[in-house]
Amino acid sequence: MDVSFVNPFIKALIDTFKTMLSTDTIPGKPQVKSGNKPTHDISGIIGLSGEAQGAIAISFPKIVALKVVSAMLGSSIKIIGPEIVDGIGEIANIVAGRAKQGLSQYKLTISLPNVIVGQNHAISPPSGIRAIIVPFDSSLGNFVMEISLKTK
Amino acid sequence: MDVSFVNPFIKALIDTFKTMLSTDTIPGKPQVKSGNKPTHDISGIIGLSGEAQGAIAISFPKIVALKVVSAMLGSSIKIIGPEIVDGIGEIANIVAGRAKQGLSQYKLTISLPNVIVGQNHAISPPSGIRAIIVPFDSSLGNFVMEISLKTK
Repeated sequence: MDVSFVNPFIKALIDTFKTMLSTDTIPGKPQVKSGNKPTHDISGIIGLSGEAQGAIAISFPKIVALKVVSAMLGSSIKIIGPEIVDGIGEIANIVAGRAKQGLSQYKLTISLPNVIVGQNHAISPPSGIRAIIVPFDSSLGNFVMEISLKTK
Repeated sequence: MDVSFVNPFIKALIDTFKTMLSTDTIPGKPQVKSGNKPTHDISGIIGLSGEAQGAIAISFPKIVALKVVSAMLGSSIKIIGPEIVDGIGEIANIVAGRAKQGLSQYKLTISLPNVIVGQNHAISPPSGIRAIIVPFDSSLGNFVMEISLKTK
C-alpha cells in the first residue's frame, strides 16, 4: 500500500494550524484504520478527485472544536453553532487545498466541505479503501485526521 | 439561486433505487435547508468537483438503512456493521455517478464516499452555500438527500 500521500496532508494540517491559529500541532504515528473506529463530535469532511480519489476528515471532540474555532476567530465561542460549523469546514478546506499542492502528481480537485455534528459519530471509508488515521496533539487538545485516497 | 442541478440528482436516486433495489421512491418537494437541520443515523456522503463544487449526502434513519441494504443484498441485515457501511456508500457512489451524466456541463468528478454512523447527526454545507434537501418516501421508509453545489 502506497501511503506516501499521507505526508503532504500532515504538513498541510501543521501549516494551517500554525498560520491560522498560531498553534503548534504534533502528529502521532499514522495508523491504518481498523475495526475499532474512533468516534468524534464534530468533523469537517471534504472529497478529493482527479488522478486519485478520496476524502479527508478532520475530527474533533466538542471541547477541542470550541477551542480551535475560538483561536481561529480570536473570540470565545462557547456553543456548537454556525461559527463552529463554518470554522471547522474552513479548516478542512484549507488543509485539503494546501495538501493538493504537495500532491500535484494526482491533479487533485477538491469538493466543498461538509461538517458533521453529532456526538460519537464514526466515519468509514468505502469498502476496499483503507483509511489512514493521524492523531494530533496541540495546546488546544487532541484531534485526528482521517485520509482515504485511492491512487490508480 | 440556480437549482436546476437538483433534478438530475433526484432522477439518479429514483433510477438507482429502481434498478438496484427494485423499489419505487417518491420525491417530496425540494427545500432550501434552513436553521432547523434534520438529523440522521446513517449518511453516505460524497464530494463533487469540476466546473462546479459540492457534495451530496443521502441520509437514513437506522431502521431504513437496514431495510435498504437488506433489499440491496437480498438478505436480511439486522445490525449496523460493515454491510451497511458498504451498502450505503455504494448507493451514494452510484447516485453521484448517475447524476453527473445529467450534469455534463459541469464536467463533474466524484470523490470516494464516506459513511457517517452516529445517532442524530446533522450535516452542514459550507458557509454561503445553501443545501437543498429532498425528502423521499418509499416502501422501505423515508429518507433524505441533501445536495450542495456551487456553480460558478
